[in-house]
Amino acid sequence: MLKVPTIVLNVKTYAEATGQKALEIARIMDKISDETGASMAIAVQATDILLCAQEVNIPVFAEHIDPIKPGSHTGWTLPEAVKEAGAVGTLINHSEHRLTLADIDACITKAKEMNLDHIVCTNNVATSKAAAAFEPNFVAVEPPELIGGDISVTTADPDIVSKSVEAVKSINKNVKILCGAGVKNGQDVTKSIELGAEGVLLASGVVKATDKESVLRDLVSGL
Amino acid sequence: MLKVPTIVLNVKTYAEATGQKALEIARIMDKISDETGASMAIAVQATDILLCAQEVNIPVFAEHIDPIKPGSHTGWTLPEAVKEAGAVGTLINHSEHRLTLADIDACITKAKEMNLDHIVCTNNVATSKAAAAFEPNFVAVEPPELIGGDISVTTADPDIVSKSVEAVKSINKNVKILCGAGVKNGQDVTKSIELGAEGVLLASGVVKATDKESVLRDLVSGL
Amino acid sequence: MLKVPTIVLNVKTYAEATGQKALEIARIMDKISDETGASMAIAVQATDILLCAQEVNIPVFAEHIDPIKPGSHTGWTLPEAVKEAGAVGTLINHSEHRLTLADIDACITKAKEMNLDHIVCTNNVATSKAAAAFEPNFVAVEPPELIGGDISVTTADPDIVSKSVEAVKSINKNVKILCGAGVKNGQDVTKSIELGAEGVLLASGVVKATDKESVLRDLVSGL
Amino acid sequence: MLKVPTIVLNVKTYAEATGQKALEIARIMDKISDETGASMAIAVQATDILLCAQEVNIPVFAEHIDPIKPGSHTGWTLPEAVKEAGAVGTLINHSEHRLTLADIDACITKAKEMNLDHIVCTNNVATSKAAAAFEPNFVAVEPPELIGGDISVTTADPDIVSKSVEAVKSINKNVKILCGAGVKNGQDVTKSIELGAEGVLLASGVVKATDKESVLRDLVSGL
Repeated sequence: MLKVPTIVLNVKTYAEATGQKALEIARIMDKISDETGASMAIAVQATDILLCAQEVNIPVFAEHIDPIKPGSHTGWTLPEAVKEAGAVGTLINHSEHRLTLADIDACITKAKEMNLDHIVCTNNVATSKAAAAFEPNFVAVEPPELIGGDISVTTADPDIVSKSVEAVKSINKNVKILCGAGVKNGQDVTKSIELGAEGVLLASGVVKATDKESVLRDLVSGL
Repeated sequence: MLKVPTIVLNVKTYAEATGQKALEIARIMDKISDETGASMAIAVQATDILLCAQEVNIPVFAEHIDPIKPGSHTGWTLPEAVKEAGAVGTLINHSEHRLTLADIDACITKAKEMNLDHIVCTNNVATSKAAAAFEPNFVAVEPPELIGGDISVTTADPDIVSKSVEAVKSINKNVKILCGAGVKNGQDVTKSIELGAEGVLLASGVVKATDKESVLRDLVSGL
Repeated sequence: MLKVPTIVLNVKTYAEATGQKALEIARIMDKISDETGASMAIAVQATDILLCAQEVNIPVFAEHIDPIKPGSHTGWTLPEAVKEAGAVGTLINHSEHRLTLADIDACITKAKEMNLDHIVCTNNVATSKAAAAFEPNFVAVEPPELIGGDISVTTADPDIVSKSVEAVKSINKNVKILCGAGVKNGQDVTKSIELGAEGVLLASGVVKATDKESVLRDLVSGL
Repeated sequence: MLKVPTIVLNVKTYAEATGQKALEIARIMDKISDETGASMAIAVQATDILLCAQEVNIPVFAEHIDPIKPGSHTGWTLPEAVKEAGAVGTLINHSEHRLTLADIDACITKAKEMNLDHIVCTNNVATSKAAAAFEPNFVAVEPPELIGGDISVTTADPDIVSKSVEAVKSINKNVKILCGAGVKNGQDVTKSIELGAEGVLLASGVVKATDKESVLRDLVSGL
């Protein structure tokens, strides 16, 4: 399982992180992780899992899996396919790709069976607590209104982090917690850990940066 | 654009056609196409586009694209990403992955802009006619109740093929038509062409076959 | 079928048009229609169909039907149920409630079987043309970006109206066309008719008005 | 809040329970409840809430609410609208109408604010536990594969009931539990209570019965 504290980068479907550009970011992270020993993972588009996984040592995650079994499901994301392509983990229920309660359960159960690391994304304290009832590896709380914004959740709404930590641990102490939304620098990472989280999930703060390596190094300095 | 008459294989998310197994099927098709000159394409999972496209000469299609632009769309299928991975075309609105009318329009418009070949799947004469109004490259009519079954649409419901051909051509003569559902052998392919279609879209008939090469060679014999 | 030219009011789920407040608006429309002979219809929430239909003479429409048959479909909108409650027609595929192509076809087919008047909403010229292929009673074109705005589609984008009229009539001359988005007054109604439409579909222009009766009378003056 | 033990009937969109036929069933339940003092509620289609609520004394529930606020949401189910029509409660997340985790949270929060009684439907022990984290009035566990079947969940899978009770109560003792799927008679009701549930949620067992009154009286005898 992903070591903590950790920095998980979700590259979404940004133009700046599609195909070869996703690979470039993965390589920078790989180099920094290699130099510093920092735990980092990158979640990439399904199309880019193979490209990245065969080139880097850091964990490559899928951004999503669908709760399907092998069969007739044209165009959906099969857990077995992301694993064969090289993913060792997956996001589940990202704010931009919500699942039903039953499907979150099915995805977590499948991820456990397949030994895929998994991060269940939630939007507030109540949904973090509910997600914890499934005993996933990670819950990542991200207030949707702060995603993609300029102010880190750790500054804009530190309570949502500390209360999610408390709520999740009250259900199961083994579930790890990340926080995200607006995270951009090492201070945000440090603050997330002070608030009881075991790292951050972020996207645009790195992907949209001109100098991605600098931003990544700064983030790692906060671990 | 895909030459006609053609055979398009959609491997869906079958275990028998995921990862290396998708590549094996693509290689068989590539060999047969090379030997016979037959026009064939394979639609594979997003995770497997790169794997197949870098190894074979036949057209590799995506099974699906989402009507999104580069940006914040975690886990969805970006048209630009499937193209960069090597896809030269895509299915749109497969019966297992339906889209809204507005999204079909958006996907076709995007596919045209990106010069991605595209096959819009429909379920009956009326939806085939409606889809033709968008002037896509291909409409593929597949009655959902026959998909995955033992009897080819060309036998079970030949009228749906000939009437779809008539309806589509009444809107625009340039839109090409495929038919699918239950297609398994060369006779079905020949019959599809007699009914006015320009080829077939099939899946389980090949993917579930023990001897995939024999089935593919038989299909090609019907062109 | 709804006589043309016509004014169709969709009250959505506005607080100003829920329950008794929906009935109040329906009564105003009923009175004006009675006095002027103008053709008007009101589309209300499923909860409010019975309330309105038993009190007014103008046609009461559902805002939506689901493509389901009687059976196990908890919480979805059964066409038979809206009809028994008193609806004589329905919107289909509103921009806030999009349906797949196959489901639009199923809803139109069901509406025809049940003799429910029906207005298929579309977002541009291409989707209007596609919808016309189903030969519905009405197509209502509404550019989503103008819905709820201050400028009428007839002013902001008159071409989308006239070209939709042309496209729809090229498929089937019997399909009638409404336009909507930003429509607020009699001039907008008059302009819609000059552009070839047979009336308007509107919502906030009436529902959000302080003096709904004045706005409705003004709209009718444009017929 | 609904008194326990209780029998909640969900009439879905059955032809046998639409419009006047829904009212007939509600009247039978009302009579039996009046005679016996048994706690019973009926969940009806949005179109039929007003019809039933103005005629009977037993609690009338909506089958579904959407997590929306008053505004531009054509054809969706506004919580305020079902309440004004007379509903005093609602099902949330029925197996035929699944919601995302975030939307379940939003619906429960809204129902609490509006003082609407609410029953969150779940499909297994894990989702029951997760739902309990939201502290809803009720969780109703129904294994989807048994819904509409001939064998009651209390016979086919008693463990899912007792373990859901245990899991839910481990989160919050105040959350009440119903069970459902295949429930048909008084013995099933008695068994549900023996297993720790506070009643049943059922549908076809009553709606599809020739003599609905007999079935309902038998169910009540099991309380």
